[in-house]
Parts: sequence; structure tokens; C-alpha cells
Amino acid sequence: MSPIRGTTTLIVHLGDPIEPVKAPTVYNPYFEKHGIDAAVVPMGVKAADYPAVLKALFRLTNVRGALVTMPHKVATVALLDGCTTAVTVAQSCNAIVRRPDGTLFGELFDGEGFVRGLRRKGFRFPGASCLIVGAGGVGSAIAVSLAQAGVARIGLHDTNGAAAEGLVARLARHYPHLDVRQSIPDPAGYDLAANATPLGMNGGDPLPLDAARLAPGTFVGEVVMSEALTPLLRAAQDRGCRIQAGADMLYEQVPLYLEFFGFRSATVEELRAISKAG
Amino acid sequence: MSPIRGTTTLIVHLGDPIEPVKAPTVYNPYFEKHGIDAAVVPMGVKAADYPAVLKALFRLTNVRGALVTMPHKVATVALLDGCTTAVTVAQSCNAIVRRPDGTLFGELFDGEGFVRGLRRKGFRFPGASCLIVGAGGVGSAIAVSLAQAGVARIGLHDTNGAAAEGLVARLARHYPHLDVRQSIPDPAGYDLAANATPLGMNGGDPLPLDAARLAPGTFVGEVVMSEALTPLLRAAQDRGCRIQAGADMLYEQVPLYLEFFGFRSATVEELRAISKAG
Repeated sequence: MSPIRGTTTLIVHLGDPIEPVKAPTVYNPYFEKHGIDAAVVPMGVKAADYPAVLKALFRLTNVRGALVTMPHKVATVALLDGCTTAVTVAQSCNAIVRRPDGTLFGELFDGEGFVRGLRRKGFRFPGASCLIVGAGGVGSAIAVSLAQAGVARIGLHDTNGAAAEGLVARLARHYPHLDVRQSIPDPAGYDLAANATPLGMNGGDPLPLDAARLAPGTFVGEVVMSEALTPLLRAAQDRGCRIQAGADMLYEQVPLYLEFFGFRSATVEELRAISKAG
Repeated sequence: MSPIRGTTTLIVHLGDPIEPVKAPTVYNPYFEKHGIDAAVVPMGVKAADYPAVLKALFRLTNVRGALVTMPHKVATVALLDGCTTAVTVAQSCNAIVRRPDGTLFGELFDGEGFVRGLRRKGFRFPGASCLIVGAGGVGSAIAVSLAQAGVARIGLHDTNGAAAEGLVARLARHYPHLDVRQSIPDPAGYDLAANATPLGMNGGDPLPLDAARLAPGTFVGEVVMSEALTPLLRAAQDRGCRIQAGADMLYEQVPLYLEFFGFRSATVEELRAISKAG
């Protein structure tokens, strides 16, 4: 990567645990290739420390923005001065930029990355029916982006019934034509089934949904990135489903982030090539 | 430099303005050469924000230490849980490490870097008489290290008489055999004259001391690093004096910092070679 200097603009990357994050291996080689004096710097922050740390980091003169990952996406919402509708509905935020007046503005690109990836793979959103398992930050983000992309029906499952219920209510309020309700984790009858839980990160995790009920016409999307093909994606492939891996969602978000932070943007193809070369 | 990853140990480098700092160009190539997964990351911090920011940064799980530069070296002292005698006497701190119990321990390497550089150039400390112009953080650090190296006499000059007076008192208390007093900025009769003011950073600055009174036997040391040869050093060379540049003081400190932060240490020669190659 380019050398970090006193002049380097920092994008802090906040999460806990921070060790597994992959974003620096995408952004930093991109900055280097284009001679952009900027760096994504991962920082581990415990949940209890997050509000004070976030505030302090944005007092730094050379911090322009933040990438936010687990477990801070939900807590971020209350710390913003302004945000997009996606943040409001999903009650989750994964990108923060400091505006010229010093205030913090939040965006949420998880869902948009997920939807862009599916669109690139030929999935047609208008009128589609979608199962989302997991109503946390990333599940909420995917739900909002699916709603904005024009799907007809969303079924939501979460072992935390209150989380699912709250998200159903917010979606129903913002997207009155959407048929949105809680669902069991059964993908039968859905055009799309998305895992938005952490299940699959650890060996021995149960599958997030009943894979035996996957029909070949159902598209299966995944948010877990610990391996290219999670057990869910392997099961889906075995049943003839088209799939989207967690890393795809990440790559699709990068051009959006770059633009959000005010950097020269890139195509997903360029970003993949740079990342592989590095 | 090595890619920054989620596993990378961070040493934050705090100052204002942060743009001119040079330390990352020394440390980061060193870490890369030796496969040490660590990075020095410069961060600009305004003085008013410094106490809260410092506390917050050390809450980050992957921050191991801090390099502190202007204008925060003095303010740091009150924020430490423990420190060396050099920090206490100089009332200045330029290195912080988080101990295993989470407390912050401070050191001060400016003076030691200055003294090590002079020793390498053959200057003999025992019994020497030394003029220091500037009784701020770095001047105080140099005074302490000269006292510890066994000089007999220190004359201190600062346009802020109270600063000079306080430092004289602290030195006298800790080093009872040292002849230490306030002085005019006249190097005549001194074995060593050190500029520890910012004079020389900006074109048009007056010289920090009366160079016409420099004798060829007087060693002249400089803390300003904006150029290899400051106007003071050029004047000293013209008068036949041996000199030490500000960058020398920086390089001499690096092995001390590396050891302090718990990294594999290096020789000054290796560090210079790596830095030039990068």
C-alpha cells in the first residue's frame, strides 16, 4: 500500500472483533493504484466504548469518515446528526462522513451492495418475493434495499421476535405497498432467500434456513464472508440454486463508499482485480 | 509499507499540525522489512480535544502506544498513570505505552536521542558546560538527559522566563551537583549550544542564539528538522563548529521507541538505510 504520511486522509474502520475485516485489502491497494493519499485503518472498539470513541475519532483533523461493522451498526444511528432513509428504516448505519460543518452524516450500503450484486447476476426485483433470515443491522439493510428495488413481498425471520416485529412495522410504514410480515425460515415459494445472520461464521453452526426446502428457482444470497462458499451456499448450489456470496456484497458497496467519502470512484471489476493483485 | 489489516497493531502519532511528521517514513518501512504487523498512523489532534482523544484512542483494542509531538508533549504528563524521572523533571512526554493492566505509562526520548547522537559524534559529556535555548518540552528533555549524562553546567534561556525558572528549579532539585541557571542566549564559553526552540522552522526566523559568539570548539545541536541544515547549523559550520541536525535526534530515538513499544529493535544505521531506500 501507499506509505501513510502526515498528510494522509484516514477512513477509520470500526468493529469488534476487528481482526477479520477485509475492507483494507480492497481500499488501500485502490488508493495506492490511483495515487490517492488516503488509508483505511482498522480499529477495534468495544461496544461500551463506542460512543465516546466515535466522537473522539471525528475530532481528529485527518479523519474524513468511518466504515462501521459489527457490532456497532445499530449503536451508530443514535450518534449521527443526519442520515438517509435507509438508515432510519433499518436503524443501522455502516458509513459515516464528517460534513464541512463538522456534523456526522450516516449511510447504509449493505443492502444496496446486496441488491446491486443480485442485479448484476440477473435477478429481477419488481414483484419478487423474498425471505430474509436475520433482522439485525444487515438484514434490515437488505430489507430496505429490496423494498426500494420494488419487490412485492418480504418474509422476515429472526429468533429475536421483537427485532423482526419492529422491522416489519418500520418497513410497512415507509413502503405501504409492500407485503411484509414475519415468516418461518422456510424458503419454499420465495424467489430469493437471504441469510443475514452470523450462522456459517463458525464451523458447526446450523444452517440459517431449511435448505431441504430450496427450489432450484430460488436465488440464495449470503452475508457471511468467512469463506467463499458457506455451508448454506454449498447446499443451495447442490439444489441447483443460483447464489451470491458475502464478498460480492462487500465489493458492490465499495464504489458507493468511495463516492460517499468524496474519492474518485471505481468499477467493481477494477476493485476485484486490484484486490486480487494485492 | 506492509498492508494494514485487521490484525495490525497501531502506534498512533499525535500532533497538530500533523502533516509535517516524518516518523511514519522511518517506522513503517522498518516494520515492513521485518514482517512486523504494525503501523505508525499520524493523527491530527487539536489541543482542546487532546485529553478526551488520547483516552479514547487507548480504548481501541489494537492501539499499543502513541508517539506524541507538538503541541501535546506537556499536556500528556497529566494524563499518564505512571512515568519515568525524565518525564517528571522535564514535564514533557513523547511516548506512551498501554501496560497490560490498561494503565498508561509515559517516557521521553527527545533528550536521550539528542545525547546519543552527540555521543556518537564524539562529544564528551562529563564536566561539560551546555547552553540550551528553549525551555519547552524538547529543551527540558535535552536538559534532563544532559544532566543524566554528567555535564557540569547548564545555562537555560527562554523568552518565557517562568518556563526557564521552573525547569531550573526542577533540575536543581533532581541533580544537586549540577550548576544550572538561567542564561542569555550567548554561546561564548559553552562546550555545547543547543537550539530547542522552533526558530528555523520558518524562513525569516531570527537565529535562536548569537551565532557571532560561537567558538570553533563549541558543538552546536539543533532540534528543528524542516531542512537538513537550518540557518543556525549553517552559521555554526561557517564558524568551524561541529554540528548535529534535528533529524539525527529523531533517528537516535527510534531504537528506544521500538524497545519501549515491545518491538524487535534496530540500529540507527539500519533505520537510516531503510528510510532512505523507502
